Amino acid sequence: MKILVLNGPNLQLLGKREPDIYGELTLDGIMNALRKRAAELDVAIDDFQSNHEGELVSMIGSAMGDYDGILINPAAYTHTSIALLDALKAVDLPAVEIHLSNTARREDFRRESLTAGACIGQVMGFGAGSYILGLQGLVDFIKQSKERNL
Amino acid sequence: MKILVLNGPNLQLLGKREPDIYGELTLDGIMNALRKRAAELDVAIDDFQSNHEGELVSMIGSAMGDYDGILINPAAYTHTSIALLDALKAVDLPAVEIHLSNTARREDFRRESLTAGACIGQVMGFGAGSYILGLQGLVDFIKQSKERNL
Amino acid sequence: MKILVLNGPNLQLLGKREPDIYGELTLDGIMNALRKRAAELDVAIDDFQSNHEGELVSMIGSAMGDYDGILINPAAYTHTSIALLDALKAVDLPAVEIHLSNTARREDFRRESLTAGACIGQVMGFGAGSYILGLQGLVDFIKQSKERNL
Amino acid sequence: MKILVLNGPNLQLLGKREPDIYGELTLDGIMNALRKRAAELDVAIDDFQSNHEGELVSMIGSAMGDYDGILINPAAYTHTSIALLDALKAVDLPAVEIHLSNTARREDFRRESLTAGACIGQVMGFGAGSYILGLQGLVDFIKQSKERNL
Amino acid sequence: MKILVLNGPNLQLLGKREPDIYGELTLDGIMNALRKRAAELDVAIDDFQSNHEGELVSMIGSAMGDYDGILINPAAYTHTSIALLDALKAVDLPAVEIHLSNTARREDFRRESLTAGACIGQVMGFGAGSYILGLQGLVDFIKQSKERNL
Amino acid sequence: MKILVLNGPNLQLLGKREPDIYGELTLDGIMNALRKRAAELDVAIDDFQSNHEGELVSMIGSAMGDYDGILINPAAYTHTSIALLDALKAVDLPAVEIHLSNTARREDFRRESLTAGACIGQVMGFGAGSYILGLQGLVDFIKQSKERNL
Amino acid sequence: MKILVLNGPNLQLLGKREPDIYGELTLDGIMNALRKRAAELDVAIDDFQSNHEGELVSMIGSAMGDYDGILINPAAYTHTSIALLDALKAVDLPAVEIHLSNTARREDFRRESLTAGACIGQVMGFGAGSYILGLQGLVDFIKQSKERNL
Amino acid sequence: MKILVLNGPNLQLLGKREPDIYGELTLDGIMNALRKRAAELDVAIDDFQSNHEGELVSMIGSAMGDYDGILINPAAYTHTSIALLDALKAVDLPAVEIHLSNTARREDFRRESLTAGACIGQVMGFGAGSYILGLQGLVDFIKQSKERNL
Amino acid sequence: MKILVLNGPNLQLLGKREPDIYGELTLDGIMNALRKRAAELDVAIDDFQSNHEGELVSMIGSAMGDYDGILINPAAYTHTSIALLDALKAVDLPAVEIHLSNTARREDFRRESLTAGACIGQVMGFGAGSYILGLQGLVDFIKQSKERNL
Amino acid sequence: MKILVLNGPNLQLLGKREPDIYGELTLDGIMNALRKRAAELDVAIDDFQSNHEGELVSMIGSAMGDYDGILINPAAYTHTSIALLDALKAVDLPAVEIHLSNTARREDFRRESLTAGACIGQVMGFGAGSYILGLQGLVDFIKQSKERNL
Amino acid sequence: MKILVLNGPNLQLLGKREPDIYGELTLDGIMNALRKRAAELDVAIDDFQSNHEGELVSMIGSAMGDYDGILINPAAYTHTSIALLDALKAVDLPAVEIHLSNTARREDFRRESLTAGACIGQVMGFGAGSYILGLQGLVDFIKQSKERNL
Amino acid sequence: MKILVLNGPNLQLLGKREPDIYGELTLDGIMNALRKRAAELDVAIDDFQSNHEGELVSMIGSAMGDYDGILINPAAYTHTSIALLDALKAVDLPAVEIHLSNTARREDFRRESLTAGACIGQVMGFGAGSYILGLQGLVDFIKQSKERNL
Repeated sequence: MKILVLNGPNLQLLGKREPDIYGELTLDGIMNALRKRAAELDVAIDDFQSNHEGELVSMIGSAMGDYDGILINPAAYTHTSIALLDALKAVDLPAVEIHLSNTARREDFRRESLTAGACIGQVMGFGAGSYILGLQGLVDFIKQSKERNL
Repeated sequence: MKILVLNGPNLQLLGKREPDIYGELTLDGIMNALRKRAAELDVAIDDFQSNHEGELVSMIGSAMGDYDGILINPAAYTHTSIALLDALKAVDLPAVEIHLSNTARREDFRRESLTAGACIGQVMGFGAGSYILGLQGLVDFIKQSKERNL
Repeated sequence: MKILVLNGPNLQLLGKREPDIYGELTLDGIMNALRKRAAELDVAIDDFQSNHEGELVSMIGSAMGDYDGILINPAAYTHTSIALLDALKAVDLPAVEIHLSNTARREDFRRESLTAGACIGQVMGFGAGSYILGLQGLVDFIKQSKERNL
Repeated sequence: MKILVLNGPNLQLLGKREPDIYGELTLDGIMNALRKRAAELDVAIDDFQSNHEGELVSMIGSAMGDYDGILINPAAYTHTSIALLDALKAVDLPAVEIHLSNTARREDFRRESLTAGACIGQVMGFGAGSYILGLQGLVDFIKQSKERNL
Repeated sequence: MKILVLNGPNLQLLGKREPDIYGELTLDGIMNALRKRAAELDVAIDDFQSNHEGELVSMIGSAMGDYDGILINPAAYTHTSIALLDALKAVDLPAVEIHLSNTARREDFRRESLTAGACIGQVMGFGAGSYILGLQGLVDFIKQSKERNL
Repeated sequence: MKILVLNGPNLQLLGKREPDIYGELTLDGIMNALRKRAAELDVAIDDFQSNHEGELVSMIGSAMGDYDGILINPAAYTHTSIALLDALKAVDLPAVEIHLSNTARREDFRRESLTAGACIGQVMGFGAGSYILGLQGLVDFIKQSKERNL
Repeated sequence: MKILVLNGPNLQLLGKREPDIYGELTLDGIMNALRKRAAELDVAIDDFQSNHEGELVSMIGSAMGDYDGILINPAAYTHTSIALLDALKAVDLPAVEIHLSNTARREDFRRESLTAGACIGQVMGFGAGSYILGLQGLVDFIKQSKERNL
Repeated sequence: MKILVLNGPNLQLLGKREPDIYGELTLDGIMNALRKRAAELDVAIDDFQSNHEGELVSMIGSAMGDYDGILINPAAYTHTSIALLDALKAVDLPAVEIHLSNTARREDFRRESLTAGACIGQVMGFGAGSYILGLQGLVDFIKQSKERNL
Repeated sequence: MKILVLNGPNLQLLGKREPDIYGELTLDGIMNALRKRAAELDVAIDDFQSNHEGELVSMIGSAMGDYDGILINPAAYTHTSIALLDALKAVDLPAVEIHLSNTARREDFRRESLTAGACIGQVMGFGAGSYILGLQGLVDFIKQSKERNL
Repeated sequence: MKILVLNGPNLQLLGKREPDIYGELTLDGIMNALRKRAAELDVAIDDFQSNHEGELVSMIGSAMGDYDGILINPAAYTHTSIALLDALKAVDLPAVEIHLSNTARREDFRRESLTAGACIGQVMGFGAGSYILGLQGLVDFIKQSKERNL
Repeated sequence: MKILVLNGPNLQLLGKREPDIYGELTLDGIMNALRKRAAELDVAIDDFQSNHEGELVSMIGSAMGDYDGILINPAAYTHTSIALLDALKAVDLPAVEIHLSNTARREDFRRESLTAGACIGQVMGFGAGSYILGLQGLVDFIKQSKERNL
Repeated sequence: MKILVLNGPNLQLLGKREPDIYGELTLDGIMNALRKRAAELDVAIDDFQSNHEGELVSMIGSAMGDYDGILINPAAYTHTSIALLDALKAVDLPAVEIHLSNTARREDFRRESLTAGACIGQVMGFGAGSYILGLQGLVDFIKQSKERNL
C-alpha cells in the first residue's frame, strides 16, 4: 500500500512559525515520525510540500495508479481552493484532510473547508499527531474497502 | 487515566439507523471496540448515552475530578447547543469531538460545530474508527500535558 | 393500525395560553376529539406530551415496531431541534407535522421548520382541526403504502 | 356554501409531470375526487386553472359575494407573487393554501410561501389528499365562523 | 401633451379593499379626480388597469410615440417585476412611480422598488393625492425638458 | 397654517454641488420658490438648514405647538439617523420627506430611509419640485385631517 | 426535427431598445436569420414572443409531442419566474437558454438565472449570434441523443 | 408576594467556572444574598436550577397561581430556546431576565436574547448584583401594577 | 463619589412622547428621583441632556478626573454611534447603559447596542426605575473596585 | 486570425474524470476537434493547459499582439480568481468563457463567475461543443469588429 | 498651497487614550510635527478638531476657495457618516484619509470606510507618521494636478 | 537595512494596462523611482514580481534573516489569498501593503483586504507614490523599533 502525503503553503516554515499554534516540530520532524508510523503499518509514503496551488493540483491529478490514498494538509488552500476540491474528486482516491490546529478555535474564515467535501474524513487539532491519526484512519479505510471487494 | 465517553441524541439507534451514513455497527459494538483499545492504552473509560441535552451538560459538569478527559460525540447537539459548549469550557478538561460521518459531506446546517470550539481536536468520517482515533489523540494529549508539567 | 401522537413543549398549557392564537380547547379536549376520530378510522392512538426535547427524541426512537406512523406537533422545537429531525429520519416511519396556528402568520423565526423535512406532510392553522386532518392524511398514506406493497 | 378552487401554473400538466413528486393523477382526476367529497360535505365548488398570475388575481378579486371561501394551490406563484397575496387579503374571504408535495423536502426557494400569510391554514404533502383535507378544513372553518356569528 | 396612466394588480378593488391603508375612494373616483386635474394642466390622459404583468409591459412598450410620459402605480409588481423595469427603460419616456400608501410604513418586502430605478421620481403616501402630485411633477418635468430642447 | 421646513447636511452647498444630480438652483432659490407657493396656499413657512443631526432633532422636538406639519429633506441623515426618526415620531406632527434626486437611482446605501417610517408620505426626484409637491401634499393632508375632526 | 423558439418580455421592442446593449437588429431580423440557419441544419422552427409569463408557460406546457427541443430567451423572467422553471422541467424536452447580452456584465439582479437549471446549456453575449449558436448546440444535442438511443 | 427564581444550565458550576467572567461566588452564595434582599423587600422566593430546558419550561408553566413574578437567568438557553420564550409568554407573569456578565462584551452568538422579548426588563453585567437589582426592579413593577389595579 | 448622568437625543421630550412606551414621567421628574436616590447612596450626580452626538462625546471625554463613573442613556445613538463607544473606551471610567424600555421588545434595529460593549453592565425596561437600578449597580461596582485596590 | 485557447486546472484529467458531468472525451480529443473547426473558419489556434493560476495569468498577459482573441475555460478558477479577471481586462482582447457542463446545474459555489465579467460572452453545457460554439462566436465577433473599423 | 487638516471625534483625547493602539503622542504633538513637515514642503496648514459630525461637515463645505486640499482623520465617523462623504464629494477638493492605527487589524465594524470613497488615497497604521505621509501624498497630488493643467 | 519589494499578479503589464486607473508608468519605472528614494533613505531594496501566488508565498517565507521588512502590492491576491496572509504572519517581519489605486473607489470585491491584517500599515491611491510613501513609512517603523530595542 502506498500513500501520497501532501503539505500545502507555508508548512515549510513549521518550527519557525508561531509555535503556540503549530507546535515546535519542523515539517521534516513530522514527516520522519509519520514515516516511522507508516513502516509499522506496512505502508509506503511519499511526501511533497508546495506553496503552489497548481503543483498540489498536479500531484493529485497524477496520483491515480501510483497511490492507494492521499493524506493532505491543504493549509491556507483549505478555505480558498475549488481547484484542489476538483482534483481530489476527479482522481477518485480516498483522501483524509488533516490540520495541525483545531480550525474551530481560529479565525472565522478558517471555519469552512472547501476541500473536506472530497475527503472521507478529517483529523484536526493534535499537532503532529493529526498526521499519525489521519494516516491510521486512511489505511484502515483502504484495508476495509479492499476486504469488502474480495 | 480515566476518560468519560459521551454519546448524544439518537446514537442509541445506531445500527437501526441509515447504514449508508453511519455504518452497521451498534453503539454497544463501538463501545466494546473502544474499551478494548482503551485497555491497550492502559486507560479506563466510562460511557454514557443520552438524548437529553441537560443530562449531557450535567455529566460534563460533574466530570471534573473524576476524569482526565472527555471524548464526545454530541450528534445533533453539535450544531445547536451553547449549553454543551459552556459545560465543556467550564470544567476545563481536555475534550475531543468525534463524528461517525464527515459532516462536510452532509447538509449545510451540519457544517458548523458550536461545541468544537471548546475541544482540543476533532476526528470525523471514520465511522467507529473516529472513536478509536479520537481516544488515541486525547490520551496522547493528556500524557504530553502531564510530562510538560513534571 | 397504531399511531403515536406527540405533543411538544408548553402544549400542556393549552387553554390557559393566548386563546386568540391557539383557541380555547385544552390538550385533553383535543386528544379526546382525536381519539373519537381515530376510532371512526379504526386506528389506535397513544398520545404523549413533553416539554423535554430528549424525551420526545426517545419516544420517536422507540416507536419503530410498535407504531405505524407518527403525528407530531413539535411546537417550539419545530424551529430549533435537529435532534428531532434526526430521530424522525432514523426510525423511518411516516410522520405528519401539525400546528394549531398558521406559522406563516406569526414571528419570522417560526417560518422555518427543521423537522418538516423528515415528514410526509404538514397541516397547520386549523386549531384542533389540524390534528384531525393530519391524522386522516397520515392514515390514508399508510393504507395506500400497504396497498402498494400487497 | 360555495367554494372557489384555484389551481396555479403548470398544474394542467399533472399526470404528465414528474410522477415521483406529484403522483400519477391528472388535475381532472383530482377535481373529480374533490367534487365527490364536496358533495358529501354539501358544498358546491367551482374550479379554475390558469398559468397566468393576472387571471388568478382577477378570479380572487371577483370572488367576493359569489363564494364563501377559496382553496388555492398557487404552485410556482406561491414563492414569487405579492399580487396574489394582496388579492387574497383584499377580498377578505377565508382561504386555505394547499400543495401536492411537502415543500419542506424540495429546493430551498420553495421553502417560503408569500401567499400563506393571507390564508387561515395550509395543507401539503398528501398529493391529491391535500385538496380533500384542505377543503374539509376550510368548510369546518366557515361553518364555525357562521355559528359564532349566529 | 398626453400621459399614459397605468394601474397595477388589485387596484380594481379599491374601495372594497382595506380602507385604513388605501382610503375609501374607488379607482374610478381617483381617475375622475385625476382627469379633472389633467384638464386644468391642459393635458390628456388615458388610464388603464390590469392585473396582468404582461399587459402592463405591453402597454408601456407601445406607448412610445403616442404618449409624452407615464404615470404608473405598479402595486404589487413594484417589488417583483424586472419585466416592468425593462419596459420602462426601453421606451425612454419619462415615468413617475406613485403609491397610495407610504411603503416605508408597511411590510419589509414592500421596501424595495424594482421599477423606481427606471422613473424620474416617486410620490407615495398621499392616497389619491399621490396621483395628482405625481401627474403635476411629471408634467412639469416634460415641460422643462421641452424648454431645454428649444 | 404654519409649516416647518427642515434642510439637512450639505444642502447649504446646493448650486455649488454636482449639478447633474441636484440641479443648479441654490437652497435660497428653492426656499423662495417654496415660499411663493406657500403664499398661494395661504400657509406660512419657516425654513432651517443645519449640518448638525442634533440641531435638526432639537428643531423637530420644539416644533409641537408652533407648527402644523414638517417638510423635511434629511439628506445624508435619511439613511443613518434613528435620532431623527425618534424625534419625528415623538412630536406627532404630520411630516413629509422629500429628496431632490430619486434615491432609487443612486448608491445602494441611499436606498433605505430610516426617517420615512415616521412620515405620512415621500416625494423624490423632482429637484426643487419635490419641495413644492411635498408641501402641497402635506397641506392637503393637514386640511383633510382638520375637516375630519370638525 | 422541430424546435420551438420562445422570446420573453420586451423583446418585441428590439431595435427600438437601448442599442448599445442589445444591438440594432429587430426581433424579426433575428428570427429571419435564425430561420435561414435552421434551414441549413434541416430543422423547422416556430417562434413565439410574449410579454406574459403565463403564455410562455402554456406554450412550453403544450410543446411536448409537437417539438424536439426549446430555444428560449426568457429575458426579464429569467430572474423571477419559478413557473417557467417548472414548465421546462415538466415537459422534459431539451432546452437551451440564450441571452443577447452577457448578463455577467449587467446589474447584480441579472446575475442569477432561475430558468437555466432546467436547460442543457446556455449561450449569452453574442447578440443575434446567441440564437444561432444556441440553436446549433441544441440541434447537436438532440441528434446525439437520438444516435445514443438507436 | 412570591417570586420564582430560575437558574439555567451550568450555573451549578458557579465558582468553579471561569472566575474572570462570572466572579468567585457560588450559586448558593448568590441565592443566599438574594434571599436576604428578598426578606428586606418582604418578598418570598423559591429558587430552582436546572440544566434541562424542559424542566425550566415546566417550572414556568406551573408558576401561574403560585407566584407573582419570575426572575430568570436562562444562561446558554437565552440564545437558543424558543420553548422558554413560549413558556414565559404563556403564563403571563411579569419576568425579568438577568445575566452575571454583560453579554455585549462576549461572543457574537451571545448578543441576541430569544427570551428577553417575553420579559419586562433586563439586568446584566453586575455579577451577583444582577440578581439583586433584577429582583428589586421586578418587585417594584409588581407593586406598581397592583396599585394601578386598585 | 461623583457620577455623570448623560441623557441622549429626544429625552428632553419625555412625558410629551409616546407614554405607552416611555411612561408619563418627565426627564426632570426622573432626574429628581435619581438625585434623591443618589443622596441616599451618598453620591453626587451631575446630569446632562443633549441631542448632539458630539456634545455627548465631549462630555464623556472631559469626565475623567471629575467623575468616578458614568450612567448613560444613549437613546437613539445606542445603535448608531461608534464615536460614543470610542469615547467611553477612551476615558476608562466604569459606565452603565440604561434604557427606559426593554429594547428586545421594540424594532429590530434597536436590538443591537454599539455602546454597551464599553459598559460594565446594562439595565433596561424599568422606565425611570432603570436609572435608579443602574445607578445602584454602578455605585456598587465602584465601591467594590476601590475596596479591591486598598 | 489567431486565437489563444486556455484550459484551466484539472482539465488534463478529462476522460478520466466523472464522465457523467464532463463526457468521455479527452482534452486532446476536444482540442483536435476544435482545431478542425478552426481550420474551417480559417483561424489558427494555440492551446495551453495549466493547473497554475499564475501561468494562465502570464499567458493572458503576453497574448496581446500575438493573438486576436482568447477562448478560455477557467475551470475551478472561474469562481475564485480575481487575478484572471484582471489579466483579461488588462490585455483588452475579446475573450469568450466556456464550460463543459452547465454550471447552473451544479453546486451553489459554481453559480458565480468572477471571470465572465471580462468576457464578451459565455457558452456552457454543450460538452466539447461549448468549445466549438464559443470559438465560432468569438471569431464572428472579431470579424464584425474589424468590419466596423474599416 | 494651503491644506485643511481635520481631526474627528475623540482625537482631542490622544495621549490619554489606549496608548497600545494610538501611541503616546498628543494631538498637539502630532500637529506640531505635521506643521514642521508642511513648512519643509512649503505648504500652509490649518488644523481643526471636532467631536461634532456637523462641524466637520461645515468645515469641509466652506473649504472650497480657501484650501487646495483636505487631510482628514474622520475617526469613528469614518464608518458611520454619509454626511461627511457627501461633503467631501460636494466641494471637489482632493482629500486624503488617514488613520493612526491599521483599521484592518481592529474590530470588524472598523473595516469599511464610508468616507474613503470620496478621497484620492488612504494612509493608515503609521501612528503620527500617517499624517506626515498623507500630507506628502496629498501635496504631490496637487502639484501634479497643477502641472497637468499648465 | 534591506527591504524586499513584492509585486503581485498582472503588475508586469503596468503601462499597458488601463491607464485611467493605474497611471502610465511601467513597473520598471516605478521600481527605478523607488530605488532612488531607497538610496536617499540609505536602504537597499530587492524587488520581485510574480503572477504566482505560490512564488510570492515562497519569497516571503525565505525573507526572514535576509530582509528587515517587506513592501508588498499583492494586487488581485489582496482579496483572495489566505496563503499570503499566513506567510506574512509566519515570518514576523514588518510589512506594508500598498496599492496604486484607492480600492475604496473600485468594485465591491476589492473592498476587503485579507492580507492587510498581517501588515503594520497600508498606503493606497497615490499611484507610484504609494510605493514611495509606503517605503518611507516602513523604514521609519523599522528604525523606531530598533531604537526602542537599544
